[in-house]
Amino acid sequence: MPAGTRAGRPGGAGRPGGAAAQQAAAPGPGRSARKRQAIMDAAAGLFLRHGYQGTSMDEIAALAEVSKQTVYKNFPDKEGLFTEIVLGTLDQAGEPFREQIEQLRHTSDLPGDLRDLARQYLITVMQPRVLQLRRLVIGEAGRLPALAEAYYQRAPERTIAVLADCFSQLSGRGLLDAPDPLLAASHFAFLVLGQPLDRSLFCGPDRGFTRAELTALADAGTRVFLTAYAPG
Amino acid sequence: MPAGTRAGRPGGAGRPGGAAAQQAAAPGPGRSARKRQAIMDAAAGLFLRHGYQGTSMDEIAALAEVSKQTVYKNFPDKEGLFTEIVLGTLDQAGEPFREQIEQLRHTSDLPGDLRDLARQYLITVMQPRVLQLRRLVIGEAGRLPALAEAYYQRAPERTIAVLADCFSQLSGRGLLDAPDPLLAASHFAFLVLGQPLDRSLFCGPDRGFTRAELTALADAGTRVFLTAYAPG
Repeated sequence: MPAGTRAGRPGGAGRPGGAAAQQAAAPGPGRSARKRQAIMDAAAGLFLRHGYQGTSMDEIAALAEVSKQTVYKNFPDKEGLFTEIVLGTLDQAGEPFREQIEQLRHTSDLPGDLRDLARQYLITVMQPRVLQLRRLVIGEAGRLPALAEAYYQRAPERTIAVLADCFSQLSGRGLLDAPDPLLAASHFAFLVLGQPLDRSLFCGPDRGFTRAELTALADAGTRVFLTAYAPG
Repeated sequence: MPAGTRAGRPGGAGRPGGAAAQQAAAPGPGRSARKRQAIMDAAAGLFLRHGYQGTSMDEIAALAEVSKQTVYKNFPDKEGLFTEIVLGTLDQAGEPFREQIEQLRHTSDLPGDLRDLARQYLITVMQPRVLQLRRLVIGEAGRLPALAEAYYQRAPERTIAVLADCFSQLSGRGLLDAPDPLLAASHFAFLVLGQPLDRSLFCGPDRGFTRAELTALADAGTRVFLTAYAPG
């Protein structure tokens, strides 16, 4: 897993200044932001390689080349640091997809646009980094229930709610017959994601699917959904 | 999680004799079998409470009240012990359900019998112990890939293959139109399981679904499947 080199850059709470400020070698806010980012990159790599339990704040400080004090100045504890990495990655990965759902409300080609949405949905969820964090969070859910619930609300549940709202509007336009839009949204989601996601949680992103296989699965799920939820 | 007191009794490789022999206090095969079972019960409880990484063979020996030597006489290492617990639980949980699929081939009431099958499928997968082990295995999949793959093959993949074979036969009888039975089986599986399983992996069995909610989800998934795969 070449995870250590691909750490994400979750939302910038407390990250001041523009690119120039952040790149300057001088001390000041840019330097703090770089240190914070180095800590998050180091932590993400270690969590993905050794698991949450198998990673210590000492190792994170060492890999980030900062003092342990600096780590704790930026993050209250290991759970807080892990939470920020996970939720930041989710927000970043899911946002473009949720925007695409918003556009589907106004579609003039439901079969084509829903199929494109399904393809994008599957690609978004199957990103190696997103999958690996999903696995880690599920594995730690018994010990970090607040994080696991936050994950569920922030990703699957939120996306299904946005989808449901869209399907409700499409039903109003007579393009779908979905009297229970939330249920319809779940059906769509798992017709598309179900099997590849389940397999990848166990067998890993490296033993994954080709882009062509994902496309075929997304298209097939969309066809079944449209047949079942076709109006009158 | 009151897991420690609910350890399962996976398949009896090397477990001799009837109940009487196993209950006798005398030394001999019954005593070995009881020790082996005590080790598995202790290990299952500890794994579920503290995770795989958070559990040592020393702790397992102490809780089972046997020597560490006895643990290693029965199991090659911690991974072997965990594997036997996980796969044994899966086999035990899934077998009655796979027998029910076999019977569906001869159905004279597909909507009713498929709906009953869907309900049983969901109940089987959502058993707290099965769910908790699924979480643990997913969480350790990066470090124990052989176990995770064995899990996938032994449970989801195997069940979907048996379902596909059944759907193929039902297509032959003109009761379904499923030209790709494996795909149809995946669609059925995740129409029924998808959302409740995903939510429970994150939010846990304690924040789960009522029996009535599971029934409603199974019935709705079955309806969508039958509409989409109805013969011409």
